[in-house]
Amino acid sequence: MSTYQHIVIAIDLSQESGEVIAKATQIAGSAKLSLMHVIEPLTFAYGGDIPMDLSEVQEQLQTQAKDKLAALASQYGIDAEHCNVVVGQPASEIHRVADEDKADLIVVGSHGRSGLALLLGSTSNGVLHGANCDVLAVRVHPTD
Amino acid sequence: MSTYQHIVIAIDLSQESGEVIAKATQIAGSAKLSLMHVIEPLTFAYGGDIPMDLSEVQEQLQTQAKDKLAALASQYGIDAEHCNVVVGQPASEIHRVADEDKADLIVVGSHGRSGLALLLGSTSNGVLHGANCDVLAVRVHPTD
Repeated sequence: MSTYQHIVIAIDLSQESGEVIAKATQIAGSAKLSLMHVIEPLTFAYGGDIPMDLSEVQEQLQTQAKDKLAALASQYGIDAEHCNVVVGQPASEIHRVADEDKADLIVVGSHGRSGLALLLGSTSNGVLHGANCDVLAVRVHPTD
Repeated sequence: MSTYQHIVIAIDLSQESGEVIAKATQIAGSAKLSLMHVIEPLTFAYGGDIPMDLSEVQEQLQTQAKDKLAALASQYGIDAEHCNVVVGQPASEIHRVADEDKADLIVVGSHGRSGLALLLGSTSNGVLHGANCDVLAVRVHPTD
């Protein structure tokens, strides 16, 4: 039996996302793997209702994210049906998905010295603070 | 080959420490395991030089910690020579030991909703922020 039964991998779709997925798959054993990406709603940045053009941008972002996530999932052998692109506040969405999936491990990326700049940006601490399961912060090595 | 080659487990010697060590040993595979505990110097709390009686207290704390750590190490099959009780600021001491050991994973405990109250208390974020390697926060379930 693997240590973990269901691992949720939360990535920001940056170049380092592959490192995070690779590490998760290494420790997964026979665990079920889910891959997710959270898009922050543009309303968070602009406030109020989204004008039509922003709404289209939001839709484009979601489509692009879904495509990227599907490509990464395929590359690392993760079922397409276990891929989620959601819109919301990253930390709480990750907790929600992890709770719904009864995940016992959340895997995220960490940039190290520059702060726990998880691949999810400033929401990193939130992911760790509110998790009901284990959290693995994978130290990634930015290429830029 | 295991995912990790050298895992440093940092515990606060609370009742939940066993859970953290158990999880670390589960994912360890053939990785080398080190167990450590950091005692904050009493001078941090009191400032200035330590009066003789406090110095004795500090020594007693270290002796007690070493005994507890040795007992846990024995229980979980970790070599006594890979046990460290150090005095200092927890996050930086953990980073120092992990760097010296060329560790690729630090395992600490997390209390979940109450904040990432790692078994190392308020230094939890520091452990995550400055780590040069992966960090696994194990969700523990306090018994009290």
